[in-house]
Amino acid sequence: MASSTAANPTAAMLVIGDEILSGRTRDANMHHLAGELTRHGIDLKEARFVADDHDAIIAAVRALSKAYDHVFTSGGIGPTHDDITAEAVAAAFDTPIGVRDDARAILEAHYRQTGMELNEARLRMARIPEGAELIENPVSAAPGFTLGNVHVMAGVPAIFISMLAGLLPRISGGAPLVSQSLRVMRGEGEIAGPLARLAADFPDLSIGSYPFQKDGAFGTNIVIRGQDGARVDAAMLRLAEEMKA
Amino acid sequence: MASSTAANPTAAMLVIGDEILSGRTRDANMHHLAGELTRHGIDLKEARFVADDHDAIIAAVRALSKAYDHVFTSGGIGPTHDDITAEAVAAAFDTPIGVRDDARAILEAHYRQTGMELNEARLRMARIPEGAELIENPVSAAPGFTLGNVHVMAGVPAIFISMLAGLLPRISGGAPLVSQSLRVMRGEGEIAGPLARLAADFPDLSIGSYPFQKDGAFGTNIVIRGQDGARVDAAMLRLAEEMKA
Repeated sequence: MASSTAANPTAAMLVIGDEILSGRTRDANMHHLAGELTRHGIDLKEARFVADDHDAIIAAVRALSKAYDHVFTSGGIGPTHDDITAEAVAAAFDTPIGVRDDARAILEAHYRQTGMELNEARLRMARIPEGAELIENPVSAAPGFTLGNVHVMAGVPAIFISMLAGLLPRISGGAPLVSQSLRVMRGEGEIAGPLARLAADFPDLSIGSYPFQKDGAFGTNIVIRGQDGARVDAAMLRLAEEMKA
Repeated sequence: MASSTAANPTAAMLVIGDEILSGRTRDANMHHLAGELTRHGIDLKEARFVADDHDAIIAAVRALSKAYDHVFTSGGIGPTHDDITAEAVAAAFDTPIGVRDDARAILEAHYRQTGMELNEARLRMARIPEGAELIENPVSAAPGFTLGNVHVMAGVPAIFISMLAGLLPRISGGAPLVSQSLRVMRGEGEIAGPLARLAADFPDLSIGSYPFQKDGAFGTNIVIRGQDGARVDAAMLRLAEEMKA
């Protein structure tokens, strides 16, 4: 569908993990983030998935943090040898990283409470780059962090969701998108002409068409999005008229 | 988890579509491709999601086609105004594009058979870059294509799956990965030490750990992957011994 021309803040996502690229695990965080950002008036413009590879993470963090207002990362901040995201993000910003007292205190309190040992591996989760702001983890304590415009969060979906919920109110979004949709029982190929003309007449709106097949018949969901509700109404009114014919 | 050191062919995926970045649709094709490539001995190294934006698609196609042996794209080759992938891929390679006779013949036969009209919008799906090889579409006829090392396929999952099934036998893969897994009822933080030592002693293998929580208890799935089955066996034997303790 056509891209929106909104002047909202822009964002990219960086998903880190071999297990997703090998097909072992299906990522769920990108879809969740996409919906949350849309609701908060932040435009997700790009997502990248890279392996647990120091250089690949650095290159992606640098490229995305330069190109967009915000970067949200998912994965690679646990206690094992393959959790290298925090180091790589620090390296991308040429920032020193080490066990930080505030993060250590959070872990100490958590493990004291749960009766587990804060061993060397778990202490790795207190490694936070200098100057970074912590992101709270209500599920399992070990915090994420914001360094520059990069928000580093865990890959486990329940933790990612809870971290994002705490983070988003700190980030100011733009105007949320208004969206209306129309379901027509015609194939995309049949309505492509009218849709293209509608898109040309409403360049400030984003007009998308999503084909489906049900019980052997072809249909299309048409979605009109924009920041000005009156414009979305006007476009939808015309579309509904045209689809009646 | 640690990255594999296999000398397999490398690949990237490029998913194109505003509807995925807005959270309206959840992509399913990347997870499917990831699993299929692993089975065929091709290493998926990176995935990128971009909007229906001419320049963004060109930039991603150029970057990925230079960096990897193969690029698989999904989305943006239908009949509507926002389906701009074919044009953008052609532009990325500075290749002319237009309605090609072989693709038009496929569409003509299909629409004749189904009694639908091959109108101007549908004819756009016969636009194929010069020199590209067609990828068969057993679901709805309109073909994908391979241009250089870029394989351009549809976004609708049933069509993507069927196109990929026809394409993969044409692409020679490396040795498929052998994989074994062990489920232990201990948290990642507890077994991180032994895992790191195992990874250091078996640098040719990829050793991943995937935490889970079940009925309030913490557990970890440990996965060992490699191209040499005997090495995977040896590492798994040692791991099983250590986890007994």
